[in-house]
This record gives sequence, C-alpha cells and structure tokens, in this order.
Amino acid sequence: MTEIKELIILVTDFGTKDAYVSIMKGVILSFNKNAHIIDGTHEIFPQNIKEASDFLAESVCFYPKGSIHVVVVDPGVGTKRNILVVSIGGRIVIAPDNGVLSGLVYKYGIDSAYKIKTEDWCVEPSDTFHGRDIFAPVAAKLSKGEEPMDNFLEKILVSDIYLPKFIDEPVFEKDKIIGNISKIDRFGNLISNISRNFFLNCFNDCDKLEVYINSINIGRIKKTYMLSKPGDLTALWNSSGMLEIAVVNSSAEKEINLSGDDAIYIYKR
Amino acid sequence: MTEIKELIILVTDFGTKDAYVSIMKGVILSFNKNAHIIDGTHEIFPQNIKEASDFLAESVCFYPKGSIHVVVVDPGVGTKRNILVVSIGGRIVIAPDNGVLSGLVYKYGIDSAYKIKTEDWCVEPSDTFHGRDIFAPVAAKLSKGEEPMDNFLEKILVSDIYLPKFIDEPVFEKDKIIGNISKIDRFGNLISNISRNFFLNCFNDCDKLEVYINSINIGRIKKTYMLSKPGDLTALWNSSGMLEIAVVNSSAEKEINLSGDDAIYIYKR
Amino acid sequence: MTEIKELIILVTDFGTKDAYVSIMKGVILSFNKNAHIIDGTHEIFPQNIKEASDFLAESVCFYPKGSIHVVVVDPGVGTKRNILVVSIGGRIVIAPDNGVLSGLVYKYGIDSAYKIKTEDWCVEPSDTFHGRDIFAPVAAKLSKGEEPMDNFLEKILVSDIYLPKFIDEPVFEKDKIIGNISKIDRFGNLISNISRNFFLNCFNDCDKLEVYINSINIGRIKKTYMLSKPGDLTALWNSSGMLEIAVVNSSAEKEINLSGDDAIYIYKR
Repeated sequence: MTEIKELIILVTDFGTKDAYVSIMKGVILSFNKNAHIIDGTHEIFPQNIKEASDFLAESVCFYPKGSIHVVVVDPGVGTKRNILVVSIGGRIVIAPDNGVLSGLVYKYGIDSAYKIKTEDWCVEPSDTFHGRDIFAPVAAKLSKGEEPMDNFLEKILVSDIYLPKFIDEPVFEKDKIIGNISKIDRFGNLISNISRNFFLNCFNDCDKLEVYINSINIGRIKKTYMLSKPGDLTALWNSSGMLEIAVVNSSAEKEINLSGDDAIYIYKR
Repeated sequence: MTEIKELIILVTDFGTKDAYVSIMKGVILSFNKNAHIIDGTHEIFPQNIKEASDFLAESVCFYPKGSIHVVVVDPGVGTKRNILVVSIGGRIVIAPDNGVLSGLVYKYGIDSAYKIKTEDWCVEPSDTFHGRDIFAPVAAKLSKGEEPMDNFLEKILVSDIYLPKFIDEPVFEKDKIIGNISKIDRFGNLISNISRNFFLNCFNDCDKLEVYINSINIGRIKKTYMLSKPGDLTALWNSSGMLEIAVVNSSAEKEINLSGDDAIYIYKR
Repeated sequence: MTEIKELIILVTDFGTKDAYVSIMKGVILSFNKNAHIIDGTHEIFPQNIKEASDFLAESVCFYPKGSIHVVVVDPGVGTKRNILVVSIGGRIVIAPDNGVLSGLVYKYGIDSAYKIKTEDWCVEPSDTFHGRDIFAPVAAKLSKGEEPMDNFLEKILVSDIYLPKFIDEPVFEKDKIIGNISKIDRFGNLISNISRNFFLNCFNDCDKLEVYINSINIGRIKKTYMLSKPGDLTALWNSSGMLEIAVVNSSAEKEINLSGDDAIYIYKR
C-alpha cells in the first residue's frame, strides 16, 4: 500500500438529491483539505450490491495506483459486518464486507486486506450512516498518509472476505453458447454475460457464427456499430470485452420485446 | 470571516441537463482558476426553498471552516430581494434572501451578515441569471481573498434577513408525541419532524414506547435497521437525529399506503 | 493554442449510472494526476448532437482560456469520422466531427483546427469507446503540454469540418416575427429560437409589441420574471439573449397545452 495519493473516488447508492453525498464530501475535506474528490457514481440502484460490484470491476483499475475508492452501498450498516480496506492492483478500496468487492477480486485478485478497527473509534459512530462516520474519515486519513495505519486498520485473511459469485456464467453446449442479459446501459445496449474470453474457449472468429436473442437472428458478430445500418440490430464485442446487442443510432431495449427472462445464443453453423 | 479557503460548494435547483451549472463553474474558474468546486447538489426541486433550507442545514457544517457555499434556489431573481453573504459556524454562505437560510440559522445561529452591493456592480447583471452574474463572481472573489470585502459587501442586521419557520413542530399531548413526514429519501425512508431533542424533553429511552404511522404499530424505537427482520417496518433515530421509519432491505414508501397527510405517533404505554 | 491549463471539462451523453464517465476520469487522471476534471454535463440525451451543440455554445466560453473541453456525444464511434481538436476563443475543444461543434463555431468562429492522428496510436483503440481510448488520453496529454502536439495532431482546414446549421431561424414578415420552441429547461421555461439580435434587426424596444404562443396572447416583453404575477405567462429576454416564455413561480410547459409543433410570434401593433 505505497504511493498513497490524495485522489478519493466515491461510489454510492445515495443519489444526489439527498444530503448524504455532500455530507461525506464535507467530512473528507474537513480531515484533508487537499483531498481531490471525484464523483464515480451515486446512481447505483439502492442497496444493489451486484450492480455496485460490476461498476467497480469495470472502472476502478482505470484510475492510477494509490487512488482511494470509497464504496458506500451498505444495506447492512449498523450490523457487525466488517468494513474492509483492500489493495487491488495498487488501488485502495474501502467497502463494506457484503460482496461488493466480488467483481474486482475475481477480475484482478487482491494484494492485501485489512478491516477497520471500529471498536476504539474516537467518536461513537452512528448506526445508520457509516459513510459519514467511518468510511469518509478513514479515506481522508489514508489520503494524508500521516497516521500509522495500524492505528485504525487490522490485517485480515482474504479468505475471510465475503466474495459471492454474482454472474451466472454462460453455458457451452456442443454447437452453441447460451447466455443472458446482465445489464442494459443508458443507450439501451443489451450487455450479455458472454465474455470474449469465454467465447474464445469455445469458438474462434473464423467460425461461421450466428447470434440470436430469443428467436431473433442478429447475424454475425460485427467489429463496430457502424458496420450495420441505422435501425438494424447488431452484435459486437463491447469496450469491456462482453458480447453486446445494440441498435445503430437507436436503442435495442426499445426495439426488442424483452420479457425479463431473455436468452442470448451464439450458434456455430 | 477569516480562514478563507478556495473551496466552493454549489447547491442549486438547476439540474445538470441544462447549461446553467456548467456556466457558473466556468465563471468561477475564470475569476479564480484555483477554485476547488464541489457539487453539493443540483437536484433541489425547482424553486423549493424549504427543501434547499433542509439540505443546507444537514450538510453545510460538515465542510471545513472557510468553505464557501453558493446557493442558487432563487425564484425571485431579478427582483429587489437582497443577495446575502453570511458566516455560519465559520462557513460562508452566499444565498438569496428568500428564507433558504432558515434551517441553518435556527440550527447554528449566525456569526455575521452582509448583502452584496449590486448597485455599483461593474457589469450590468442580467435579470434572470444572477447565479452567473453575481453569485459566481462574488464566490470566486471571496475565495481569492484579494479584494477588500467592503468593495462589494455591506454589513446588515441579522434581523433584516427573512427567516421563516418551515418545519411544523411536532406536538406533545400527555402520553404521546404527534408528528408527520418531513422528507422521503432515495431509499424510501420516511423522515419525520420529531427530533431526538424534542423526544428527550417529553420521554426517555427507558419508557415503554410504541411508534405508529397512521394506524400501523411499528413497535419500539430500535438502535439500527438490522435489529428488525428484512421486510419489517422499523423506527429508529437516524444519522441527523430525527425519528425515521424504514423497512429493512426495502422501502417504507413502497410498503406503506401513504395518503400525503400521514401522522407519526410515539405513545407512552 | 497557448495558455494550456490543467482544467478538463467533460460533456457527454453517458449519464452517470453506467461506468463510462468514471472510466474516462480514471484514464485522464492516470495520464495526468494533476488534471482538474469538471463535470460539464453527462445528461445530453443519448446521441443528440444538436442538444450537445447548443450546450457547448451556451457554456464553453464562460470557462477560462486554455481550458480543455472533451465532448463525447459520438454515435459514429468506430467509423472513419475524424476526432477534432479545435481552438475556439482560446478554449480547446476535443469532439467528434459530427456537427457537435456547429453551435460554437457559428457563434464564436474558430482559431485553428486539428484532427487526431489515430493511425499511429500506440495502443489499438476499441471500436466502441473512443472516449476512453482516444479522447481522454489526448485531453490529458494536452493538459500536461509536454509532448509535441505534432506527435498526435494534424492540422486540417476549417472547411473540412462538418458544421450543419441546426437552428431553424425565425422568419420576419412585415409586422411579425415567427419562431418556435428550441428547448424547454428544468423549470419548464420555453426557450424560443428568436434571439435578441434577430429581434433588433426587425423591431425596437419602443415599438408596441405583443407576444403570442400559438393563439395565446402573452402581452409585452418584460424585463424580468417578477414584473408578472405568480401564475401568469410572461415573455422576456433570457440570460442567453433568447426570447423565453415562462410562468412566474411555476412551469410554462405545464400551463400551456403544447402540441410539439408550437409557434411563437412577436407582433408589431
């Protein structure tokens, strides 16, 4: 855990209409007026741990080493659940031990893991807003790097962290991969759970392939949106390496009659 | 008004879809390129002065002394209403004189109060966007601390500030406190107007108490969400010291059939 | 292109729920940890180039010279469209060559224009997220100002930039100006396409004038909202110099039965 910078990224499910986020920013800046606070997102769906886990896995490691990521998606606030401080690829992540780190850890592994020692916390924290009372002060202290970490952190085993597998993996059956929709983005792009790595273990790009969503034939996997005509459904590998169904200059979510229980197939012909 | 920092927090009802907020940021940075701008919120409901007042009372004093808070919730823009610069607990707040400071002043008092002298403003301000033409330049000048304040500020009496009482106080009747819902947050938590201080003037924690919302019995006041089962209604003191009705791992707003004219009771049995 | 600062303003249609914006921030800060990133907006309607063009024309030139504006509203990502780096009034704008610069260029002209040389880009960019792979690294490099610009930029002619005219201009017919609604803001204000400059070429402020929206008479053009009674429709020149229809302390959008094909008239009587 070297290279501590003053960069603090916030990822919460607080929204920005309530005062929670502004309060956390105030606390951080009160502890370290040089903290450079970045809004990662505050729009995680309330208490949705899987969504937060995906967000972190997609974004944290694009930040520089030493950056501090504060994750407050914390339905268990006020219980005995640990608050973790882990180093992942040199980035520091402060998060409740509720599974929110799964995406990051399964993608990048983990360098070292600590929990926050709340028992001898100087001020009694509230039971409902640890973002303000514990996460923010700890992030600010780490960003200053003055106080010995032993004062407030205690080493733990990685095996003691709760790391559920959220993504139901796609299935490979002799001539086809069967997956589903794991996320729909703001553009109405349907992002599947089929990664390029999984695909390359089953097929290769020279195979004659056809993508289906439910019973709709989308044709081959294209290199970019623009190899299809506006309004046409297209399948491609997105910027995170996942198979994505899109409609050029429009929204696949709007074009397709989704049931909420939709299947995505890659067939080899 | 010492300890002026370069920290400027914006609290507006502009949203972020229109260009108003970005324009204000540009103006501030044009006056002081070292200004450290923080988005407090831009999601105050348009022209809702009480909501802005509550937001400020909850958040401003978590920021360090010397921080500058720019409040643009200003339905009276273009009229003769004053634009205030006040010091509250060492924080500087720039706001229209329309009641938006009530929450802060009744909670923390006020150190000193000024109004902006717009009569000899160098450039004629517009009549519809004082956020850009007056609030932002004044915030930037204060953050630099170079120009004598007398140039653009004039001392006023606190008694000249418009400070309506927004919160209708709960009522105490021999064996019960009667309150209502003052806010619903993003998690669907119902935040009442019953503060812990008001409660302690009526009852104490050892009393046998029962909380009701309308005719629904919620039982005792708990210490934290997690002392109730997921899906159960629970009552607790929230992180701002107000009685809150919540549903563990869900939304009280969704679980309860609210009428918009709902009562919250604490009975002593 | 002198005076390069470390100020980078982001204007995108990504929203903040998905990870795209946070990823771009991470990339910028990885290239230049001193970059000062400002959220302009991420709420441009997906792929709406005209809306982005209007936003930029309204806001960019309020930022200081040398500020770097990164515009990712880019339905053509992955095609051969150029990525532009232009200087407009001393501000640097990085944007796809898809018309998004029209508003700025027709309002302020253009100092100089470059395109990004992607052919010898060190890392192969993705075909779907140039915001991460090209825009963000180029913005960060420009903000540091260390690397010679020739390494990654190539001068182009302004005449080679795609600059469609989005705004359908109002029409002047002997005794009236006929315009329409070009935007509705968060307050429900109806912003017309009739600029004060266009108006002054037709009429002057001393003329006896009447504003209509469809068949509704709104009366004279007022100086500020507050010269009308709460609830009344009012017409005024807004802070960007456009004729605006508003309702004092309420929303014109809600008060008027808009058809989507509405006309705004200024009659001389």
